[in-house]
Amino acid sequence: MFSFDSDYTEGAHPRILELLTETNFEQTDVYGEDVYSNRAAELIRQHIGKKDAGVHFISGGTQTNLIAISAFLRPHEAVISAETGHIEEHETGAIEATGHKVVTIPTDDGKLRPELIQPVLTAHHFEHMVKPRMVYISNATELGTIYSKDEITALHTFCRESDLLLFCDGARIGMALTAPGADLTMAHLAAHTDAFYIGGTKNGALIGEALVITNTALNTDMRYLIKQRGALLAKGRVLGLQFLALFESNLFYDLAQHANDTADIIRKAITESGFSQLCDSPTNQLFPVLPNSLIEKLQQDFVFRVIQKTDETHSCIRIVTSWATQEAGAEAFAEALAKS
Amino acid sequence: MFSFDSDYTEGAHPRILELLTETNFEQTDVYGEDVYSNRAAELIRQHIGKKDAGVHFISGGTQTNLIAISAFLRPHEAVISAETGHIEEHETGAIEATGHKVVTIPTDDGKLRPELIQPVLTAHHFEHMVKPRMVYISNATELGTIYSKDEITALHTFCRESDLLLFCDGARIGMALTAPGADLTMAHLAAHTDAFYIGGTKNGALIGEALVITNTALNTDMRYLIKQRGALLAKGRVLGLQFLALFESNLFYDLAQHANDTADIIRKAITESGFSQLCDSPTNQLFPVLPNSLIEKLQQDFVFRVIQKTDETHSCIRIVTSWATQEAGAEAFAEALAKS
Amino acid sequence: MFSFDSDYTEGAHPRILELLTETNFEQTDVYGEDVYSNRAAELIRQHIGKKDAGVHFISGGTQTNLIAISAFLRPHEAVISAETGHIEEHETGAIEATGHKVVTIPTDDGKLRPELIQPVLTAHHFEHMVKPRMVYISNATELGTIYSKDEITALHTFCRESDLLLFCDGARIGMALTAPGADLTMAHLAAHTDAFYIGGTKNGALIGEALVITNTALNTDMRYLIKQRGALLAKGRVLGLQFLALFESNLFYDLAQHANDTADIIRKAITESGFSQLCDSPTNQLFPVLPNSLIEKLQQDFVFRVIQKTDETHSCIRIVTSWATQEAGAEAFAEALAKS
Amino acid sequence: MFSFDSDYTEGAHPRILELLTETNFEQTDVYGEDVYSNRAAELIRQHIGKKDAGVHFISGGTQTNLIAISAFLRPHEAVISAETGHIEEHETGAIEATGHKVVTIPTDDGKLRPELIQPVLTAHHFEHMVKPRMVYISNATELGTIYSKDEITALHTFCRESDLLLFCDGARIGMALTAPGADLTMAHLAAHTDAFYIGGTKNGALIGEALVITNTALNTDMRYLIKQRGALLAKGRVLGLQFLALFESNLFYDLAQHANDTADIIRKAITESGFSQLCDSPTNQLFPVLPNSLIEKLQQDFVFRVIQKTDETHSCIRIVTSWATQEAGAEAFAEALAKS
Repeated sequence: MFSFDSDYTEGAHPRILELLTETNFEQTDVYGEDVYSNRAAELIRQHIGKKDAGVHFISGGTQTNLIAISAFLRPHEAVISAETGHIEEHETGAIEATGHKVVTIPTDDGKLRPELIQPVLTAHHFEHMVKPRMVYISNATELGTIYSKDEITALHTFCRESDLLLFCDGARIGMALTAPGADLTMAHLAAHTDAFYIGGTKNGALIGEALVITNTALNTDMRYLIKQRGALLAKGRVLGLQFLALFESNLFYDLAQHANDTADIIRKAITESGFSQLCDSPTNQLFPVLPNSLIEKLQQDFVFRVIQKTDETHSCIRIVTSWATQEAGAEAFAEALAKS
Repeated sequence: MFSFDSDYTEGAHPRILELLTETNFEQTDVYGEDVYSNRAAELIRQHIGKKDAGVHFISGGTQTNLIAISAFLRPHEAVISAETGHIEEHETGAIEATGHKVVTIPTDDGKLRPELIQPVLTAHHFEHMVKPRMVYISNATELGTIYSKDEITALHTFCRESDLLLFCDGARIGMALTAPGADLTMAHLAAHTDAFYIGGTKNGALIGEALVITNTALNTDMRYLIKQRGALLAKGRVLGLQFLALFESNLFYDLAQHANDTADIIRKAITESGFSQLCDSPTNQLFPVLPNSLIEKLQQDFVFRVIQKTDETHSCIRIVTSWATQEAGAEAFAEALAKS
Repeated sequence: MFSFDSDYTEGAHPRILELLTETNFEQTDVYGEDVYSNRAAELIRQHIGKKDAGVHFISGGTQTNLIAISAFLRPHEAVISAETGHIEEHETGAIEATGHKVVTIPTDDGKLRPELIQPVLTAHHFEHMVKPRMVYISNATELGTIYSKDEITALHTFCRESDLLLFCDGARIGMALTAPGADLTMAHLAAHTDAFYIGGTKNGALIGEALVITNTALNTDMRYLIKQRGALLAKGRVLGLQFLALFESNLFYDLAQHANDTADIIRKAITESGFSQLCDSPTNQLFPVLPNSLIEKLQQDFVFRVIQKTDETHSCIRIVTSWATQEAGAEAFAEALAKS
Repeated sequence: MFSFDSDYTEGAHPRILELLTETNFEQTDVYGEDVYSNRAAELIRQHIGKKDAGVHFISGGTQTNLIAISAFLRPHEAVISAETGHIEEHETGAIEATGHKVVTIPTDDGKLRPELIQPVLTAHHFEHMVKPRMVYISNATELGTIYSKDEITALHTFCRESDLLLFCDGARIGMALTAPGADLTMAHLAAHTDAFYIGGTKNGALIGEALVITNTALNTDMRYLIKQRGALLAKGRVLGLQFLALFESNLFYDLAQHANDTADIIRKAITESGFSQLCDSPTNQLFPVLPNSLIEKLQQDFVFRVIQKTDETHSCIRIVTSWATQEAGAEAFAEALAKS
């Protein structure tokens, strides 16, 4: 039984466990001020070419989102998100729990563009409505789609002109940057956002996201804000060491590439079998629309989620691959589709 | 150079890393619904004799405190804490950030007693003041002191009679229960509080606290509340596996015992050298008051924090031992005191 | 120049100022516990036939909404509103500022119905999303439409069955209950909601809304919650006296009737002139769609808001009448339409 | 039966009701942008000599405090208050409900001084504690005491040097400025704080406080923040007109002077009868310590609050006079004391 349920069903890449084990008995500074966290932060700064960036390691994505957004906004300021954005859909009102409204925009593909955002700014014209002050995007999006270099540049320019901060949820940034056809780099993203985060949990880490704040004014007192939300781990090195493992070599990208490659095997089978996707995802989350009868058959051998009915006889399922997905599994699924 | 800086300067007990490694490639359910988290929760329920208790694994202590307190209280309700309580002193206003006031009580030894709490209830008599609704205690306290079985029972009875919830911060509960002279058991604590947590981080885990809710009415929708605060880890098994390692054998208590035993070596030296402690701690945090000249000398060989000046020529320092403290280190410190 | 800008451009009905003046030098109890507030609350309880209802006088509508909603919900619980609902559109994120998400539903006419709400409940199926726990409706709605008796009954039944609270924003409840064709009574509304409020500000008062809580369990500690949000006025009698003036006679309904009657003059002219409304409002807010050229002409003699462009040559305007609107003004506007 | 219960037992000064009545049928702009609110704000700006100050009229004191404090602070920043401060003692956790901790300082007389504040800054030295960022004072204090010109200057200098905002709760600022021996002016206060408010409710208004923000950077988007907390009254003129009445002549100070003068009659009697006060209040709140037997006797003819037992046979009571207190009442009380 192969599982395509999510990219967090396994533990960590072995190099991470190895590094945790190797350094286990060293005594280090605490609360993220240890030598390993510092080294990992420095590697990330070098990698993105922003030597002044604030880099903070935080356990998970929802926590990172709520900390960043509530740290950057005044009480009446709101964040703009696609309707499918993680902060809107799957964080149990975490942003609102910090006092901020999420203003949503319907999209076809989970991506925000200036022309979609402008009407929201126009509509929010006075003090009886929240003041949109930040744009939240995900890359890859929750639908698996990705932003091109030009799209990020355009969003950034628009946000600057509109007095909006631009924040990118990078829970699956590894997959976004290594997807077929992707031309965006992490350095370009860093140079064209105010802050973003690098997702570890879904790309080989046990836990951990790296919040990178390139707009240094926003970095003021961030350790206070991280602590206040309960996110300053006593043994902060646990997070730093994982990012050290991911960034001391090309491991971060290699793992993401593997996730994409195994997804590619399945994607091709979807196309070749004449099926379509909900929208065109080049990353490790696929959303094929399949006949219900086929879905039932596939469920005998594979684990995946049925997302929604699309008509009387078809439904959309979600297939997720990861750094740990075996090619044999992807091929078995592809074969099952081909035989259908 | 031996460090007595804190009980979280090392990584994890080897059994924990071993278990993480052994199970690393298994695919499990996510968000804490995996088999290992379930097994660990079940072990804890059996251990405390409360088969209906809610057990939730959360990354750290501040996060556990803020989730529990904000989940259990209505907006106008407040939590009562000793002035030295962690939620008051060292959580950067985490409780207030969820909207709740912490009402504080000065104490000599960090412990709350009914006769200290009653005047607070009397003073908060009308709707122009918050309504005290919960008592927060720490065991061991932030000063290293512990509660006896009778003291817990008395607090519980008082809280019941006064319509107050009783919540125990157990960041160092292992040390409290294994301290010389301790007569409290975890089962007794569980039976005489509404909720408490079992500290993993300071007792051999990489990260992780187990929030135990024995007042089952309070457990309603807790997974929503944990998620909303960003604390529902995608790879929840990372937490569950650690508590499995701690509770599948006597490991949890053995580690705490070791921390207390090494502290005992130093405690005896303090007494024998004629020095006093700030207050009488039987656990792994010691607060000796020493001559400044001696402190300077000790700093050449040992790492520890200077907490406060007590007079012109003396200061109070904090010595913390842990499951990983080497006896040789404790003995070296004891010897240095003896020679002074 | 007649103004149809809003129903709060004037001060108060003279009876209110008279009563404030008559009682001005009496010394009364404070914070809303005075004899006049008590008497007004009692009149309201009698009027709705709910002798145990909690009745609280609060300065304004946004404040009433935020107090009620945040008092009734736990942190992870959300309120469902029409997209046009006041809490969603025009309260600057007041509800989110108390920590709660507003889940919105698009509607044609500003009204919620069970068949619109059910899909929201179905979609919110697990702890990664907020838990819908309250339905917020406005009557009259922000589009001027009203609920019938049967519609309120059906909503109430649905909410009971779905474990949802039902709360009605009654900023313009007077107009809703006296509209042509209305069959709903305040007693029926009270019997079929958990709480609602009676709008004073837009119906002849200087300030003030009466929050009525008929689900008495929800009334627990409400004075604490009102105080905490800064809404417990020291001279609470100022609010109580106004509702006394409105409910000691039929004044509350008479004023609303007048607002509706003057709107009716204009509504008929809209129809007779062959124009349509955005949606069919029987109350004191009208939304006619008019040629831009006509709008410009009308602006020379009348004050009103242009709400939105509907096509290249037409726009929707908002006309609001009130207890203080002079018939001559309404007739002048009607005439101007007729001549167009 | 004369009442000295509080300074808000009556309605408004007649000039206020007169002005409300005179202008009642005028149609004005709404939400505080009417001509009267603008005129009143302008009068206040002229009065304090700060032509750029933001002036916002808000219903009550708790609301003003919570709006100002939550608008000015980032989430991890805290406000420092005397233990007797209104925000700490009698606002039901309103500040904490906006997410901010109140850090308290014990005082003898309700007044903060640099030497009391400095140790708090020293103690809050790292990110595990909130960051003190604002000093909250009341003038007159909750104990009736007042700040001199030099004391305000010294506090201001200290706050500037320490990167602290200075905010003054002026619920009874009228009485503070007209007290015997007072040398502070409102202009001096305005020049030496970042914001303060002028209390109307306790000095002749029906409702209303004027929040004055002289640090103009803090005034950004204040109307959003006022609206979000439910404090932007639709008929905002109701507040503006009252402050117009108070500041178009010397009425504001005359009313406060009257309150102080009638208190003076009683104060002298306290002293002449050989009784002491809890602390030395020169304003309209007196806290004499009297024999319990005398208190019982006085209660037959006068209404006042018993604040606390001071020893077995004595208690402290609170006597409050106001703009509406009759001299005959004060004299009757003085006489009763003299006869004791």
